Amino acid sequence: MGSTFGKIFQISTFGESHGKGIGVVIDGCPPMLEISPEEIQRELARRRPGQSELSTPRNEADCVEILSGVYRGKTTGTPIALFVANVDQRPAAYAKMRELFRPSHADFAYAQKYGIRDPDGGGRASARETIARVAAGAIAKKILAQVCGCEFSCYVESVEKIAMPASDEFFPQKKVDSAPIRCPDPATAEKMSARVREAKAAGDSVGGTIRCKIRGVPAGLGEPVFDRLEADLAKAMLSIPATKGFEIGSGFSGTKMTGSQHNDAFVLRDGAVRTKTNNSGGVQGGISNGEEINFRVAFKPTPTIAQKQQTVDTAGNASEIVGTGRHDPCVLPRAVPIVEAMAALVLVDHLLRQQATNILKPPQTPAAKSR
Amino acid sequence: MGSTFGKIFQISTFGESHGKGIGVVIDGCPPMLEISPEEIQRELARRRPGQSELSTPRNEADCVEILSGVYRGKTTGTPIALFVANVDQRPAAYAKMRELFRPSHADFAYAQKYGIRDPDGGGRASARETIARVAAGAIAKKILAQVCGCEFSCYVESVEKIAMPASDEFFPQKKVDSAPIRCPDPATAEKMSARVREAKAAGDSVGGTIRCKIRGVPAGLGEPVFDRLEADLAKAMLSIPATKGFEIGSGFSGTKMTGSQHNDAFVLRDGAVRTKTNNSGGVQGGISNGEEINFRVAFKPTPTIAQKQQTVDTAGNASEIVGTGRHDPCVLPRAVPIVEAMAALVLVDHLLRQQATNILKPPQTPAAKSR
Amino acid sequence: MGSTFGKIFQISTFGESHGKGIGVVIDGCPPMLEISPEEIQRELARRRPGQSELSTPRNEADCVEILSGVYRGKTTGTPIALFVANVDQRPAAYAKMRELFRPSHADFAYAQKYGIRDPDGGGRASARETIARVAAGAIAKKILAQVCGCEFSCYVESVEKIAMPASDEFFPQKKVDSAPIRCPDPATAEKMSARVREAKAAGDSVGGTIRCKIRGVPAGLGEPVFDRLEADLAKAMLSIPATKGFEIGSGFSGTKMTGSQHNDAFVLRDGAVRTKTNNSGGVQGGISNGEEINFRVAFKPTPTIAQKQQTVDTAGNASEIVGTGRHDPCVLPRAVPIVEAMAALVLVDHLLRQQATNILKPPQTPAAKSR
Amino acid sequence: MGSTFGKIFQISTFGESHGKGIGVVIDGCPPMLEISPEEIQRELARRRPGQSELSTPRNEADCVEILSGVYRGKTTGTPIALFVANVDQRPAAYAKMRELFRPSHADFAYAQKYGIRDPDGGGRASARETIARVAAGAIAKKILAQVCGCEFSCYVESVEKIAMPASDEFFPQKKVDSAPIRCPDPATAEKMSARVREAKAAGDSVGGTIRCKIRGVPAGLGEPVFDRLEADLAKAMLSIPATKGFEIGSGFSGTKMTGSQHNDAFVLRDGAVRTKTNNSGGVQGGISNGEEINFRVAFKPTPTIAQKQQTVDTAGNASEIVGTGRHDPCVLPRAVPIVEAMAALVLVDHLLRQQATNILKPPQTPAAKSR
Repeated sequence: MGSTFGKIFQISTFGESHGKGIGVVIDGCPPMLEISPEEIQRELARRRPGQSELSTPRNEADCVEILSGVYRGKTTGTPIALFVANVDQRPAAYAKMRELFRPSHADFAYAQKYGIRDPDGGGRASARETIARVAAGAIAKKILAQVCGCEFSCYVESVEKIAMPASDEFFPQKKVDSAPIRCPDPATAEKMSARVREAKAAGDSVGGTIRCKIRGVPAGLGEPVFDRLEADLAKAMLSIPATKGFEIGSGFSGTKMTGSQHNDAFVLRDGAVRTKTNNSGGVQGGISNGEEINFRVAFKPTPTIAQKQQTVDTAGNASEIVGTGRHDPCVLPRAVPIVEAMAALVLVDHLLRQQATNILKPPQTPAAKSR
Repeated sequence: MGSTFGKIFQISTFGESHGKGIGVVIDGCPPMLEISPEEIQRELARRRPGQSELSTPRNEADCVEILSGVYRGKTTGTPIALFVANVDQRPAAYAKMRELFRPSHADFAYAQKYGIRDPDGGGRASARETIARVAAGAIAKKILAQVCGCEFSCYVESVEKIAMPASDEFFPQKKVDSAPIRCPDPATAEKMSARVREAKAAGDSVGGTIRCKIRGVPAGLGEPVFDRLEADLAKAMLSIPATKGFEIGSGFSGTKMTGSQHNDAFVLRDGAVRTKTNNSGGVQGGISNGEEINFRVAFKPTPTIAQKQQTVDTAGNASEIVGTGRHDPCVLPRAVPIVEAMAALVLVDHLLRQQATNILKPPQTPAAKSR
Repeated sequence: MGSTFGKIFQISTFGESHGKGIGVVIDGCPPMLEISPEEIQRELARRRPGQSELSTPRNEADCVEILSGVYRGKTTGTPIALFVANVDQRPAAYAKMRELFRPSHADFAYAQKYGIRDPDGGGRASARETIARVAAGAIAKKILAQVCGCEFSCYVESVEKIAMPASDEFFPQKKVDSAPIRCPDPATAEKMSARVREAKAAGDSVGGTIRCKIRGVPAGLGEPVFDRLEADLAKAMLSIPATKGFEIGSGFSGTKMTGSQHNDAFVLRDGAVRTKTNNSGGVQGGISNGEEINFRVAFKPTPTIAQKQQTVDTAGNASEIVGTGRHDPCVLPRAVPIVEAMAALVLVDHLLRQQATNILKPPQTPAAKSR
Repeated sequence: MGSTFGKIFQISTFGESHGKGIGVVIDGCPPMLEISPEEIQRELARRRPGQSELSTPRNEADCVEILSGVYRGKTTGTPIALFVANVDQRPAAYAKMRELFRPSHADFAYAQKYGIRDPDGGGRASARETIARVAAGAIAKKILAQVCGCEFSCYVESVEKIAMPASDEFFPQKKVDSAPIRCPDPATAEKMSARVREAKAAGDSVGGTIRCKIRGVPAGLGEPVFDRLEADLAKAMLSIPATKGFEIGSGFSGTKMTGSQHNDAFVLRDGAVRTKTNNSGGVQGGISNGEEINFRVAFKPTPTIAQKQQTVDTAGNASEIVGTGRHDPCVLPRAVPIVEAMAALVLVDHLLRQQATNILKPPQTPAAKSR
């Protein structure tokens, strides 16, 4: 009952790691958007495994098929179904795990909740599920780009204890993607990559943080008091597997400032109302204020490791487990397009929500935008 | 369009700071729950201003009235409306602010979004809105206590740079509430209180963090892949005014660990499957695993300060502002019952969701619970 | 869990017949709409009892109070709460009925569903609940009038076996309201009134049908395949107490025609694409086509009658009952504004939904409208 | 934005007549239900074209594939995706219609709404879309049968002016399906079939009504005041293509009775509280009362006819059209399983909703059930 996301631009995802495939239905996409399978494929390529030695050696083509909702290259306003068939399945690799609860995986919780679970490759709890998010997100990003000129600067900021220097720069996707680890600071990227290789060699794994900045978001998005923009972003991010934290603007470090240090003074810049600083992260009172959206997401180290761990089997006996299967020693690089996709899904949904009730508002001075 | 929260236990809130009052309608509350206005009032008393010199001197009685849904002391399964009339209004105090956008407040964003705003006391963006959350949360907490025996340990962990020592203790509410600052460590509480008084004297404000632990949550709550329990908790927390971050379990610091350090091994304890550590924070794969729920929320320093700040007026001219009105130099102590309320609303909604689809599941070995 | 209606313009209602009052929260109303309590009161006056000898002698002032969401006469885009306090309560009148299930009332079903019920005056199942619908509907109607120039012609078409002659006329509200029975054909109105008086004298009751025509609805409203405009209208109508049927356009009698007789040919009229006939009732493929919306609703005879009836008591013993309390011998006249309100709520919600996804559509030749 | 149905047992459908196929995602299906593709296929076979000379000669195998949510023959509680590939497409047959609006079809309304449409075979507005409903309905029916022992008696009651005699009999599906026209009265069935053949020969079409009775529905389903059981059934039925009306219990003819004739007296039967008559149609106050659910749906004559009709082309010029393509001269027989499917979807959703909030209710005397 929780595989549906969004209120107007609403997606429903389905599929398991070793089933027939992964899919998504988008109900509420505006008509008349030009979209091609290639544009969606491009984003999937950024997520897919096997991009470098830093990620899992699984080689999944992840070829998307548009099943409905697009006629002669344009969306028709009816549901868009996207499907990616599973090809490189090796259920046998998971045979042993059918009887063991993998530590810090979803196995035990799923068994408790549903009384039944598909154990092959993690079933529904597999990270393969995020294919559906990235595919739908590709369409959301296109709408944002077309309607508002939105741009994303999303990258790996830290891996385990290695963090890049704080930066106000808006790194373009091309620069981010140029390093397999997706950290735009070359020196840090190198250290991070070395650390991932080292962890992999040790049969261990590492986590880290992703920074996401978005430019071009118009002022006025967000629906207080519950569907505040940062609340929906937080939910979106914490719905990504392996995430443990979210902060926007000054975040946790902002709690160490005083109000006089933290407040973002309003100033006039190029005839528009802007803020001098951006501790708010582009959101005030739950509503975008036209400044750059800026948030950070924490990812735990991958739970699958090649070391012996204490666990319990499905019959309730103490046991031991050694992770097998082909997993990422560090999910961060491949999580970048997922973070972008989820942010785009939130933003486009809020864009349509704002559009919906905008029916009586007089034309206004165009809201400031962060560009 | 964003003042509704929850899927089954669904609340809709309304009301502005200086309007007639603040209210909430709960649609989906189970019938046959005994509930009295006094039980709700007790939670409101923990939120209300004027509890100590650490908070705003406004003295709001915040007297709740049950308008519907309760018959002879029991819920009937029909919508429960709760209303708290506004009494201590001083709109004049805000007169000057009608033409000025207060820095890091919702003023500017509301104006951009709606084209119109109620400026008195912040209107809908006022923290008075949280009365509705605490009132509804009181009912949610009662259900959780009655059905699962849930208990909360929620307290102020840090104020600005002053943090209490890390602790695994489950501080009971009584101990937390015994200090006005709501930090259960007496030595830290004293330092925090001094810092708040100091900030107040300087016309400044401070922020901090709140820790929330919940015991008794049964395994199986949370609806992957989007309505994961931690995702809904994150949304709930980031929907509280002044919040900037959320982390569950190991959170951001967990990103600095390796997988072998971070994984929570499964062990047998008292015949139940339990985890040895709790870096997961009580949630795995988006579903509660029966361990203690444990998360942390970041609150920024109150934006209203009594110092001169740079801003812009509603006509678009550069201007200056000095905060007036009666505000909290630190919202943390009064935010504790709000965090509890929002967590309870999420949990009871997920409890009912889990109950809904549980119709074919065979009776199971009772899930482990953190108590 | 079912007291919420609408997706964007969403209402949540609450209140019981003999509780504190009846209310509604509207979440999603566009900002900048001028609205006064008097405009809402005017619609409530059309619904309230005691308007003539044809309805219940209860005299309920039904005075509406705007609790939130309106600032200086304009909506602010935040939730609008409306409340009507109960004043003329006589719970004693229902004392005897607490132990008896009234035939064809909600008593027994509520007891089975909730295990508890508020029996006074029918509690939540009382027709007083419709006050909330009419109040919210007044705002919906104003939006429709302002944005699209929508007009309603809604009237009593039949009472028991007395039906007015079929008519294509669009009777204005003023003409409809000029007769207490709200039938715009004077000769029929007289016969209907006589029949109602006769039934009342016999301690009996009568039902009938209401016709509703709406002009000015733009083409394009309705969201296939489930939220078709006629589907949402059908739901709205069948959610009104005492309704037993709904038909749109040719309805049940259309089933007796052939396709060649029934099809609405497209023609050009005043440069616009129009249909020659309107068997479709203004909706094709689930979407408004710009023609007059035209539907009909069946209301059963009021179940409360002053004759002895066979029933069962709450302890499960066979018993007898004679209706007391002050009830309408015929609900039809007072149901007219309720039908209008529900239709308006559906239309304004669909108007906002259509607006939401209209973001990429090129400006079009204005759709034909039925005026 | 309207292709999603249900609150807990929620379906999202997709697909066009001449696209890749038709599909549905079910989010919220209880885990542990045994389900096979064959069980779904069996229902699809009842809907599919080409069953007899009375329906379209199109021969669609409509072979369903389970894409997700079922593991080793059992539902896992995660989303179930079902897909039926399109095979017998002949887009060329529709070439001419791309520039013409077919009378009483969705063509014009879709163009007005979306500004773009897939014209091939009606695109999304094609009746092929109902494949998704029947497939999801097969699962819903299985849950109802298993949990409550629900049975359906759904059949064609009238075709054009030919109606079968009123009957209280509960015709089993087998008897209904034994005649291609799906009318359980052999004499009437023969007349109906002759009339359909006659209409077909004349290049014309006919409509009719379907009666649906459901036994075994427990008392307590339905969520006042808006999601009343009959309201959700009405919406479900009016969401089926070609429907024009819905009535429950006494329906429109009940408006011609007095209250004393119409009221369903309560009596004790076999120790259970039952009603003597069932003018209520199994629903009182919006909630099932344990009696047989009984409603009727009106279907208009198929709009596609082989006669010359007046219309307008997409460029806005007056034109003429003669229906081609392969269509049903009467949709009624094939609509029977669709009506059942939609009713089952409503009932199972309400069953889960009732289950959700049932958490504090003491065990009750089992509600009466109509069997």
